Amino acid sequence: MKSRAAVAWEAGKPLSIEEVDVQGPKAGEVLIRVVATGVCHTDAFTLSGDDPEGIFPSILGHEGGGVVEEIGEGVTSVAVGDHVIPLYTPECGQCKFCLSGKTNLCQAIRVTQGQGLMPDGTSRFSLGGKQLHHFMGTSTFSEYTVMPEIAVAKINKAAPLDKVCLLGCGITTGIGAVLHTAKVEPGSTVAVFGLGGVGLSVLQGAVLAKASRIIAVDINEDKFEMAKLLGATDCINPKNYDAPIQDVIVDLTDGGVDYSFEAIGRTETMRSALECCHKGWGESTIIGVAGAGQEITTRPFQLVTGRVWRGSAFGGVKGRSQLPGYVEQYMQGDIKVDEMVTHTMGLEDINKAFDLMHSGESIRSVVIF
Amino acid sequence: MKSRAAVAWEAGKPLSIEEVDVQGPKAGEVLIRVVATGVCHTDAFTLSGDDPEGIFPSILGHEGGGVVEEIGEGVTSVAVGDHVIPLYTPECGQCKFCLSGKTNLCQAIRVTQGQGLMPDGTSRFSLGGKQLHHFMGTSTFSEYTVMPEIAVAKINKAAPLDKVCLLGCGITTGIGAVLHTAKVEPGSTVAVFGLGGVGLSVLQGAVLAKASRIIAVDINEDKFEMAKLLGATDCINPKNYDAPIQDVIVDLTDGGVDYSFEAIGRTETMRSALECCHKGWGESTIIGVAGAGQEITTRPFQLVTGRVWRGSAFGGVKGRSQLPGYVEQYMQGDIKVDEMVTHTMGLEDINKAFDLMHSGESIRSVVIF
Repeated sequence: MKSRAAVAWEAGKPLSIEEVDVQGPKAGEVLIRVVATGVCHTDAFTLSGDDPEGIFPSILGHEGGGVVEEIGEGVTSVAVGDHVIPLYTPECGQCKFCLSGKTNLCQAIRVTQGQGLMPDGTSRFSLGGKQLHHFMGTSTFSEYTVMPEIAVAKINKAAPLDKVCLLGCGITTGIGAVLHTAKVEPGSTVAVFGLGGVGLSVLQGAVLAKASRIIAVDINEDKFEMAKLLGATDCINPKNYDAPIQDVIVDLTDGGVDYSFEAIGRTETMRSALECCHKGWGESTIIGVAGAGQEITTRPFQLVTGRVWRGSAFGGVKGRSQLPGYVEQYMQGDIKVDEMVTHTMGLEDINKAFDLMHSGESIRSVVIF
Repeated sequence: MKSRAAVAWEAGKPLSIEEVDVQGPKAGEVLIRVVATGVCHTDAFTLSGDDPEGIFPSILGHEGGGVVEEIGEGVTSVAVGDHVIPLYTPECGQCKFCLSGKTNLCQAIRVTQGQGLMPDGTSRFSLGGKQLHHFMGTSTFSEYTVMPEIAVAKINKAAPLDKVCLLGCGITTGIGAVLHTAKVEPGSTVAVFGLGGVGLSVLQGAVLAKASRIIAVDINEDKFEMAKLLGATDCINPKNYDAPIQDVIVDLTDGGVDYSFEAIGRTETMRSALECCHKGWGESTIIGVAGAGQEITTRPFQLVTGRVWRGSAFGGVKGRSQLPGYVEQYMQGDIKVDEMVTHTMGLEDINKAFDLMHSGESIRSVVIF
């Protein structure tokens, strides 16, 4: 079948709107009509060429919401007409990782996903006979996309797909890092570095976890209004201080915060986030993705005196079993999504979404097909 | 009163056996007759001059066992004749840290302890009118030493002090890191870097935690016999491999260990210990103390994909409330101490203990007064 799609032909070039060919689902796969998709920094990172694992030509996009149009042989857990969120972190329920009970990082299809291919080693996308690669196993910048059954989360049909698509990445990543990875307790103090879509969602997670004090850190003070709306009790711009920001936060909190989160992807702020934690028990969670080859550094004394350094991917959320609950929380008003959608546009204007993100004007742009 | 003591007059020089003056205990303090003391790498580190916080002249020693000889005003929790282990990490039960329930790092007397002084800001040691500093709040290289009440753990009188003195530091540090800090679960795989007294005790902790596989790593193969005796299932010498040791361990364990421990104090092995952990859930605990100014480094991807980096001091053990239980476990045969005592000597030969440690010949030397 034919599908409108934004194709990334090569690194550093704008996306190109094309009519691509999409093959139907094979065994264990489903065809999804994407209704809406967010545009996330990870898409921009790969498009920029800085992602050493980026593959071109490909169809980017990983923050989608859609409807199942067709199911392949043997598919039993979803049916035509179901509303789903595509998962770049699948949940097979059978691999060592799923069975561990300790992680959401299902590895069932990791190798082929990393190669931009479906689990059988082939692509469902092409244009003029030339193969186009999948991206993160989702490729939501195509109106029709094919996914493995284990990589779709069936959600409440009443949920607006042009909003809950954002639960497919950024918002869930931020909230989940607080609730599933760090497991912030009521009364805790929290600091969040970076107030993009993920960092703002960390604020939401901290509110859900009943944190007593929530410190938002960014050098762009335009973000502070939204941060306060979402629950920040303090907003700090490191540029307003001579002292390192970790020292400022330690002073402000009588010794440091109980939990910190880095949602930027800069190794310097990852260190600051660790070192603003309280001696004895403070835990820092890295969410942001650093550039290729960059390394984090600290004195081991920071850890020996009780701080803990960890990381989170997709908020530690198991997509098939836990993401539907996030959608329900949105429906009940406990998770805010609408506030994060600052811009909407048609697929033809998708490159504007990247411009808005780079200029810091948008929190999230949602492309509606 | 007079007391035989080994005095560290200056960095880099052997200890000097002297008859020093010891003032009696002030309010909240106790006078202890040290019966035996271990000699630990931390003593050697400070004596070497590499410890930027080392203070001279001082009386080193922090791994002791003794008897309460006199109590100061207001002391209620120990009585004359009680057997005690001095604690370099006290437990006041009242500070923010003790009350947190999250750490053993009581901070009640941290500042003065770091200055080599008692909580009132003075020293109880002198020689010919010249003040000698305390060390780690314990100074067990003196036959008589004065400690704050909050820094002694009252133990079973039946326990041999020339053995359980080692529970005052190294053995408890290793076992506790497994049981209290990492909280290793039954069936877990474990790797231990460094087979000194602490590393060997990590092996013991892993056995107590019912780990299924325990990998001991050292470049000194002479340590392997004792490692196997204490429970190592595999002993590995990194020098026997071309590949980085973390890759060797990942291969050996189908993806990495569940828990690793660094008991050397080298930042390179701290990195190896982290990176030999299993994706998704592996946790690495730093126990070793690195040289001043040294830093640990890794790619943040290691953490984002689920590994956790933490540290442990005194095994996360709260001295007054938990150390007596360690002594009971020793009495019941569950914790092995006797095997760790490879050499004993009188105080006059204490410098030999340092030589034996530096040459790697001893696990622990115990000085008997």
